[in-house]
Amino acid sequence: MTENLQRADGRAPDQLREVRITRGWSEHAEGSALIEFGGTRVLCTASFESNVPRWLKGRGTGWVTAEYAMLPRATNTRSSRESVKGKIGGRTHEISRLIGRSLRAVVDTAALGENMITLDCDVLQADGGTRTAAVTGAYVALADAVAWAREQGHVARRAEVLTDSVAAVSVGILLNGTPVLDLPYSEDSTAETDMNVVATGAGEFVEVQGTAEGAPFRRDELDALLDLALAGTAQLTRLQQEALAS
Amino acid sequence: MTENLQRADGRAPDQLREVRITRGWSEHAEGSALIEFGGTRVLCTASFESNVPRWLKGRGTGWVTAEYAMLPRATNTRSSRESVKGKIGGRTHEISRLIGRSLRAVVDTAALGENMITLDCDVLQADGGTRTAAVTGAYVALADAVAWAREQGHVARRAEVLTDSVAAVSVGILLNGTPVLDLPYSEDSTAETDMNVVATGAGEFVEVQGTAEGAPFRRDELDALLDLALAGTAQLTRLQQEALAS
Amino acid sequence: MTENLQRADGRAPDQLREVRITRGWSEHAEGSALIEFGGTRVLCTASFESNVPRWLKGRGTGWVTAEYAMLPRATNTRSSRESVKGKIGGRTHEISRLIGRSLRAVVDTAALGENMITLDCDVLQADGGTRTAAVTGAYVALADAVAWAREQGHVARRAEVLTDSVAAVSVGILLNGTPVLDLPYSEDSTAETDMNVVATGAGEFVEVQGTAEGAPFRRDELDALLDLALAGTAQLTRLQQEALAS
Amino acid sequence: MTENLQRADGRAPDQLREVRITRGWSEHAEGSALIEFGGTRVLCTASFESNVPRWLKGRGTGWVTAEYAMLPRATNTRSSRESVKGKIGGRTHEISRLIGRSLRAVVDTAALGENMITLDCDVLQADGGTRTAAVTGAYVALADAVAWAREQGHVARRAEVLTDSVAAVSVGILLNGTPVLDLPYSEDSTAETDMNVVATGAGEFVEVQGTAEGAPFRRDELDALLDLALAGTAQLTRLQQEALAS
Amino acid sequence: MTENLQRADGRAPDQLREVRITRGWSEHAEGSALIEFGGTRVLCTASFESNVPRWLKGRGTGWVTAEYAMLPRATNTRSSRESVKGKIGGRTHEISRLIGRSLRAVVDTAALGENMITLDCDVLQADGGTRTAAVTGAYVALADAVAWAREQGHVARRAEVLTDSVAAVSVGILLNGTPVLDLPYSEDSTAETDMNVVATGAGEFVEVQGTAEGAPFRRDELDALLDLALAGTAQLTRLQQEALAS
Amino acid sequence: MTENLQRADGRAPDQLREVRITRGWSEHAEGSALIEFGGTRVLCTASFESNVPRWLKGRGTGWVTAEYAMLPRATNTRSSRESVKGKIGGRTHEISRLIGRSLRAVVDTAALGENMITLDCDVLQADGGTRTAAVTGAYVALADAVAWAREQGHVARRAEVLTDSVAAVSVGILLNGTPVLDLPYSEDSTAETDMNVVATGAGEFVEVQGTAEGAPFRRDELDALLDLALAGTAQLTRLQQEALAS
Repeated sequence: MTENLQRADGRAPDQLREVRITRGWSEHAEGSALIEFGGTRVLCTASFESNVPRWLKGRGTGWVTAEYAMLPRATNTRSSRESVKGKIGGRTHEISRLIGRSLRAVVDTAALGENMITLDCDVLQADGGTRTAAVTGAYVALADAVAWAREQGHVARRAEVLTDSVAAVSVGILLNGTPVLDLPYSEDSTAETDMNVVATGAGEFVEVQGTAEGAPFRRDELDALLDLALAGTAQLTRLQQEALAS
Repeated sequence: MTENLQRADGRAPDQLREVRITRGWSEHAEGSALIEFGGTRVLCTASFESNVPRWLKGRGTGWVTAEYAMLPRATNTRSSRESVKGKIGGRTHEISRLIGRSLRAVVDTAALGENMITLDCDVLQADGGTRTAAVTGAYVALADAVAWAREQGHVARRAEVLTDSVAAVSVGILLNGTPVLDLPYSEDSTAETDMNVVATGAGEFVEVQGTAEGAPFRRDELDALLDLALAGTAQLTRLQQEALAS
Repeated sequence: MTENLQRADGRAPDQLREVRITRGWSEHAEGSALIEFGGTRVLCTASFESNVPRWLKGRGTGWVTAEYAMLPRATNTRSSRESVKGKIGGRTHEISRLIGRSLRAVVDTAALGENMITLDCDVLQADGGTRTAAVTGAYVALADAVAWAREQGHVARRAEVLTDSVAAVSVGILLNGTPVLDLPYSEDSTAETDMNVVATGAGEFVEVQGTAEGAPFRRDELDALLDLALAGTAQLTRLQQEALAS
Repeated sequence: MTENLQRADGRAPDQLREVRITRGWSEHAEGSALIEFGGTRVLCTASFESNVPRWLKGRGTGWVTAEYAMLPRATNTRSSRESVKGKIGGRTHEISRLIGRSLRAVVDTAALGENMITLDCDVLQADGGTRTAAVTGAYVALADAVAWAREQGHVARRAEVLTDSVAAVSVGILLNGTPVLDLPYSEDSTAETDMNVVATGAGEFVEVQGTAEGAPFRRDELDALLDLALAGTAQLTRLQQEALAS
Repeated sequence: MTENLQRADGRAPDQLREVRITRGWSEHAEGSALIEFGGTRVLCTASFESNVPRWLKGRGTGWVTAEYAMLPRATNTRSSRESVKGKIGGRTHEISRLIGRSLRAVVDTAALGENMITLDCDVLQADGGTRTAAVTGAYVALADAVAWAREQGHVARRAEVLTDSVAAVSVGILLNGTPVLDLPYSEDSTAETDMNVVATGAGEFVEVQGTAEGAPFRRDELDALLDLALAGTAQLTRLQQEALAS
Repeated sequence: MTENLQRADGRAPDQLREVRITRGWSEHAEGSALIEFGGTRVLCTASFESNVPRWLKGRGTGWVTAEYAMLPRATNTRSSRESVKGKIGGRTHEISRLIGRSLRAVVDTAALGENMITLDCDVLQADGGTRTAAVTGAYVALADAVAWAREQGHVARRAEVLTDSVAAVSVGILLNGTPVLDLPYSEDSTAETDMNVVATGAGEFVEVQGTAEGAPFRRDELDALLDLALAGTAQLTRLQQEALAS
């Protein structure tokens, strides 16, 4: 995979952009992280509540949910605010749901008790891969909120609320046929195939979402992308661990 | 894959439910099909318009889009109408977008000219796999609408608007670890892993969407699911061809 | 009334279109009927709930309500979905309210107890008279849901929940002055006067809604229309009885 | 019909409440009337625009439309504003449509030319019969707006825009079986049958909307109500003429 | 301030328009007033409820809130209804909040007990100063609703619910530099500076909202406007007292 | 004013919090600034468009508008997103309008030509004074967007688009009667009087918005607050100049 072929930004096909995680960016949230994948910057906050949605009350289990959004000028041209339009677009819904499912895959909701944690992932600046940066940063914010809840006694001291960590990365096949890791906007907008992979710290899949933007893709291409992706999430897992250890 | 292990409804793991395609169900639409995957019934209509959305005007290319919805009592318990709630849910948005992307993967929008085809996929009765039935049925309705447009002279007689066919199927891993094809609601709601695969008639991937509903899944499990899915979409392709030949 | 004058579809002025009632079309609903008045097809489902709206709680009486809607391509040209527009149009509201009132006219809500039945009337294909087909089909679905509730013990075995049956039909005055029964779209859209009449099995009026679409109408014209309508609802009452007896 | 039987407010069964029409109540509108049917007060304004909705452009004909609404405390207990709820209720839609249709029945839209008149009927205080007061008052406002348009030269001097006048009244059958004219809220809320009739100055029907609120009604009861209603609209026609002559 | 300079309508710079307060205009509301500042007419109703919003329950204190709105043809050209647009504009929100805050400044919510009073201020005709007329008229309606609640025993007989009265007026600097009181629309729409002042009967400020519509304003101009405004609210206070004494 | 009395955070009554302006924070926007007033952090971006709203087309003048919003967890407890609620709250509307008016007070829209600049002010973290920080930061972003437009030739090289600078600050009277400058949330939420003042670089008023949150305020208190505010905006003007010079 690591051919000598370089990309527009000089990276090797299997190389991540510079990833920075600023843990505790927010003074108010129970957990927070400003995560950067190159020019993509997502502010992730975790809000803890001793309460669950109505449909879960009395079952003894908790809930983790997420909301993703983008500032109007996070992108190259300004988009209208969804609050002004009065409705949330399909893309926003889709990504919010993806982040929520990804985090719940490593949460033991019974261990969480009747508590809820809401992850807000707001894209301050976008340059491709906002949803994967959001999943990766949200995990850090979530881990801190869980630690906070344990310290405050909202969650039992020995409860293993988090069963593993979770991280996400994008992979794709460029027009010239090269499979690459972590696509910035310039690559993403022209790629033939675009895939987002969410994986646990143990290297198992939580989500695999591949889309043929141009031509349909073959089974061997899919296999190459999955290899690249698992190598990427493994690196992100280490960066999460470092951030949480600091 | 075709072990002797039988399922609740008596099917082998790699066996589709009974699939029925009633082509031309609607008297008004330019193309239509009522498709049934067992107890799942989706009415797909294709509406042709000699017009394109504003952002495409003057580019000489057309557009294919889709809207998915479910009747309130398609399911076992009644859901509120999205029109009454005044907003469309994330799931509806997600599936509408999936169907639209899947169809566009086999459409040459330049050959379509400045015309638009809207596929409405309304679930009249749901028993799992509504989105895959919708993609599969919508292709049949689309093919008829394209043929109609050609006959009416809206599209050039020799224009190859459709570059291939497209079909979709669900696969999943049951709690007992068995990978199975085409899950009814009873299996879908308890499966560990749930995957929807959209593939072309030529057997290449258009979409791969796998989600760990329970435990994360391993690479070898993913491989088994992809094998099952491609076998399923190949059968659906034949059924589409038969329906369109009749 | 039965002059020799024939209509575009060959019917006599006082003749109904072919009416078909497919009882039990839905596997999930407590009662259901697919009703066809010629090319008009409406799927009616009745959903039973052991619960009442907040404003009725504790009064010992139940509620019957209805929601009418049309698939986007039920008509000759596609209409936008009301869920996408984010609001329900006046016509939809008006018809939903008409269906609900018509059914409640033959329901003893005290005998129903604190239970609610929701009738969903979704027009799958439209060719005039959708609201009258909806009322007529909804009664069949309602009758089955009441029978189901009695069998399940949700309603007392001897409770006379339904005090009569109810059916509806359209009548109108064509441009040539002929009063006619059960107008298809081609007649409806050009009629001078358009009237919808809802009547009980006993032949009494529940609703009379007449509108001068063109010139205002005289008292004797109104009288002729009411005669035609009552003859039509009497026939529909027999068809409902046959469907429920089968 | 004019038996000696008196009503709670001392009126005979066929007697209107005191009707007052204050023409020109608004300084801004092209036509306006504050109409009172007893305690019911509706402000009707007619707004003229040299423009038509998009779907009418270039056809040389105009449009007349209406919007009905109620102030939150027009009624005995306060209702939430529809603007605050973010959607218009079915009843509001229904009445707005009724008013618009009723006025258009006496408008020659070709003579109006490509102009639009919007009637706003806002209920300042409600005591039954708000929709019939609205139709009756809106006609006066409309007549003044048409006269204004003629004076301003927006409409040809000899154009007969109004082909007749239009007025509306409610009739109903009280619990004791008496058919009565022009029901205040106290009678309306307990009546067995409730009917609104819109008629032209020439005494022909524009709309007949009868609803069995309690028991279904017989043909002879319907006939009695229609007689009462036409006598009522004839009186309202005279009051409109007097107001417009002053 | 009272230079000989006259205004378009002949008033002196420090002179109010003719103010009329018709107390008890509504038969249904617990308090009401139709207030006129020249051609501006606002109907203010006060609705009393023995109930508080959820966030106040159990605290023993009440709430006073307000909703402002304008009829579509209150102004010179017709505006769309906010209920039809499905959302409330910023200006409406802003004024509703201003009225609510202004009234609460003279209400002892503890003395009110767990009760709520909603002031609806509907502009029937607009000619500048609608928000200040609304505050001034709403106080009269509020005072009557409080008196009603005391008589009905909903509020303790000796509770001093109202700690003072409150009134509001607009002031502004015309293009020619003259500071003036109570601007009609013709002055308001061309003024350099526009200020709304809400003051208590005791002459203290509740709200001061000044905006440079044209050039920014100096400190001495601000001082002149505040002098004019306090003189105006003092006159309005007397008119409120007279209305409440009658 | 500068008594020895200290505040909770150790500041003198007339002392600003630490103000930091990070100019050019966004890579995409034509102008941007991250502004911090102590713990309050607002990201301001200016988006330039060679286009104006429909109502301004063909008049040769431009437009400057603003949208204010807060991230859900900018505050101590999480608020629901306005996009999820489907409507914008009154407070958001009010502040967006304030920012827009404030900026337009120093813009010569004729010199801007038919161009539009949209200022997005998103509160990333809130600790009081978010609207005043937003106005102050938005001016910096606006100045950069205007410079960019001049360099790009969208605006004439000698056009004096900005006639002055503009800045805003909050002042208030604490419970103990002390008038103070630039209130953090802890002071703001308990202050008797709260005032926001927007002033030009030349020290003239653009907006004065004072509200009695507790007791009404006297004229001399108002005077003291205005003095404090003008001293504060003068300091902010210097900080803006430094940021724009760097």
